Amino acid sequence: VVRACAAHGVPLVPQGGNTGLVGGGVPDATGRQVVLSTRRMNRVREVDALNLSITVEAGCTLHEVQQAAAAHDLLFPLSLASEGQCTIGGNLATNAGGTQVLRYGTARELCLGLEVVTAQGEIWDGLRALRKDNAGYALRELYIGSEGTLGLITAATLRLFPRPRAQACALVACADLPMCVELLAAARAAFDARLCGFEAMNQASTSLVRRHFADLCAGWPQALEAAPWLVLMDLGDVQPSTRLDDDLQAFLHAQQEQGRIGGALLAHSLAQQRALWQMRESISSAQSLEGLNVKHDIALPVSRLADFVSDTTARVLSQWPGVRPITFGHLGDGNLHYNFQAPPGDDPAAFLARHEPAINALVFERVRAHGGSIAAEHGIGLLRRDALVRHAPPAALGTMRAIKRALDPQDLFNPGRVV
Amino acid sequence: VVRACAAHGVPLVPQGGNTGLVGGGVPDATGRQVVLSTRRMNRVREVDALNLSITVEAGCTLHEVQQAAAAHDLLFPLSLASEGQCTIGGNLATNAGGTQVLRYGTARELCLGLEVVTAQGEIWDGLRALRKDNAGYALRELYIGSEGTLGLITAATLRLFPRPRAQACALVACADLPMCVELLAAARAAFDARLCGFEAMNQASTSLVRRHFADLCAGWPQALEAAPWLVLMDLGDVQPSTRLDDDLQAFLHAQQEQGRIGGALLAHSLAQQRALWQMRESISSAQSLEGLNVKHDIALPVSRLADFVSDTTARVLSQWPGVRPITFGHLGDGNLHYNFQAPPGDDPAAFLARHEPAINALVFERVRAHGGSIAAEHGIGLLRRDALVRHAPPAALGTMRAIKRALDPQDLFNPGRVV
Repeated sequence: VVRACAAHGVPLVPQGGNTGLVGGGVPDATGRQVVLSTRRMNRVREVDALNLSITVEAGCTLHEVQQAAAAHDLLFPLSLASEGQCTIGGNLATNAGGTQVLRYGTARELCLGLEVVTAQGEIWDGLRALRKDNAGYALRELYIGSEGTLGLITAATLRLFPRPRAQACALVACADLPMCVELLAAARAAFDARLCGFEAMNQASTSLVRRHFADLCAGWPQALEAAPWLVLMDLGDVQPSTRLDDDLQAFLHAQQEQGRIGGALLAHSLAQQRALWQMRESISSAQSLEGLNVKHDIALPVSRLADFVSDTTARVLSQWPGVRPITFGHLGDGNLHYNFQAPPGDDPAAFLARHEPAINALVFERVRAHGGSIAAEHGIGLLRRDALVRHAPPAALGTMRAIKRALDPQDLFNPGRVV
Repeated sequence: VVRACAAHGVPLVPQGGNTGLVGGGVPDATGRQVVLSTRRMNRVREVDALNLSITVEAGCTLHEVQQAAAAHDLLFPLSLASEGQCTIGGNLATNAGGTQVLRYGTARELCLGLEVVTAQGEIWDGLRALRKDNAGYALRELYIGSEGTLGLITAATLRLFPRPRAQACALVACADLPMCVELLAAARAAFDARLCGFEAMNQASTSLVRRHFADLCAGWPQALEAAPWLVLMDLGDVQPSTRLDDDLQAFLHAQQEQGRIGGALLAHSLAQQRALWQMRESISSAQSLEGLNVKHDIALPVSRLADFVSDTTARVLSQWPGVRPITFGHLGDGNLHYNFQAPPGDDPAAFLARHEPAINALVFERVRAHGGSIAAEHGIGLLRRDALVRHAPPAALGTMRAIKRALDPQDLFNPGRVV
């Protein structure tokens, strides 16, 4: 297909599960772009349990990859809300993040090798299952995160891990965002790699969940209901003992003694752990039910998060009074979903149409000022392309464009996206 | 300097600590290449303890980076034998590995951001201290491991970690290499991220150490002296308790019960731990004292290691009777230093001059047949360039050369190296 498109100069848009949030896998309106779906390339080619690796085709859903690992009593740790639909090819093309990055890294760090069809229609077999390989330039790393603009990922060799035998989970009340960040530092020092997830959400986020999915917040102690910020701590350990629960309880007790937290809800069963995560993962749906809203997927140094939020939110509120900041995300990775709901009573669609560009401009300018990224885990695609061009260092943009020209001189793959 | 060289078409060879093993930082014999040393760019620009990151200039030695982290009670985990001389710029340019890769990854995985001078003499400020950043192509990843052929790394932002408060270490006797691999699988399942290092060495390796540094092997139990293979297991934990020692002891006891190991020496003090590591790290020096030898730095899937070694070593011994296989390395990463000492009585230099090319050809052909890499952690440089061209998939070579032409059209940076 790639060779035929190249011969006729027809642009190609690679598409996996079509769950992307930035328009990276969607053709333009000309009707002249070929959508190349990977969905029927969905075989698990090999599980190598001793090497802790798996080789799968690009069209496997993330859930299918997780299941194939689980069948060998192993873990493929990438996990995100759309895992039932999104494909591993798309996860790699966008360098997906999700809920376990703190412990296991993004899709990039979980990938050992790739098979790629180049813009010349050649197949590069780079499916190596090696932990160390310095034989030339890191082509694998270049294709990962390039959102289908440099080549088509058709298969990948991925890292697997021993499955945690114990899990522990707590929802913790914090007075403000700086306290959440301090709690993170303490948790990392205490648990290191046993800390798998560290999520934070402001009260407005959980209020929306309570309004639209009341049962997900039932039975919370008063300290949690009233807390300006909540943190979801998620721990895992390969040792199947009760140590982890005990350690988490002792940690939270010490944090409360030191005045860093206002209270905590410890999950006492797998069902309770799942309920806490379901609450966290329902914020986006609750936002949608509340109405259209302005979304940002940004990353900051953890040390700058609190300053960024207080600085930027104050500016937004002073310029757009009544707007509701819905701030939540993967605090452990410095990754916030920094969203704004229209003022109560305003028509959300009209508010969005009128104010989104100016709000985006302000937020992205502040992200840059605080040393952050305007694209943490959702990518650039079409939605953030102009913002990337505006905010990236000129030397970086020039180099990216030189790479695109060198690898895809016909501009065949996903034209007009990313750069 | 880069702009002046570009204007006059003078090639540049970036050089850090000049400790590389493949000639990547050494000028050719023409006398017309400028060696650009980074050694005076050696400031620690910033330590951000809350963000667990550090920004350093390229000419800092690895040891200086480790010390700057330690001054904040944090860990920069990259560690290798030349850490007193090698520079962090060189470590990144070669994607260095070392002894803690199993737990913390190679130099690539420890790097968050780079500052690079391009072949156009522009400075790209990519010193981001972010855990997630998908704003365009992964330029950082491309420069890492490119051995100074695409640009000059002048500074880097690196990841830091909480320091382990407990360490445990054991030297373990195994009957053969398959048993070492089984022990690795058991250790990963039992300890997960608390397993920091897993080194293996055949009896010929430790015999050389015993001959040239007898005191490093003093007081070993008979089971270790007689063992065909030894494994060095290294554990770390942020919790300052005796749990780790207890867990290791219980693990080794269970392994012995199951017949997987023949005996073990548990280090009971920091001094004993250091002595075990010193023994392991003296193999290379013992090899040098024994005389010139044929060296390979290769990686295999862990599941293929034992087959590769028995297959390849048998072929080498049948073709070169009496040659002594010195096989050791970072088994946990699938990375072997697969070396051969001349037969006893032969002149090592004469043997090397006569047989090295044929031994290399055989070894590299077998590496490829077993799905491995001819360059695990030492890089390509000049020494392995022709082998890379011979063994890399054609599509990969073409893409690498297209990238080199696109980023360095004048062939200014380290010409003739890597590709």
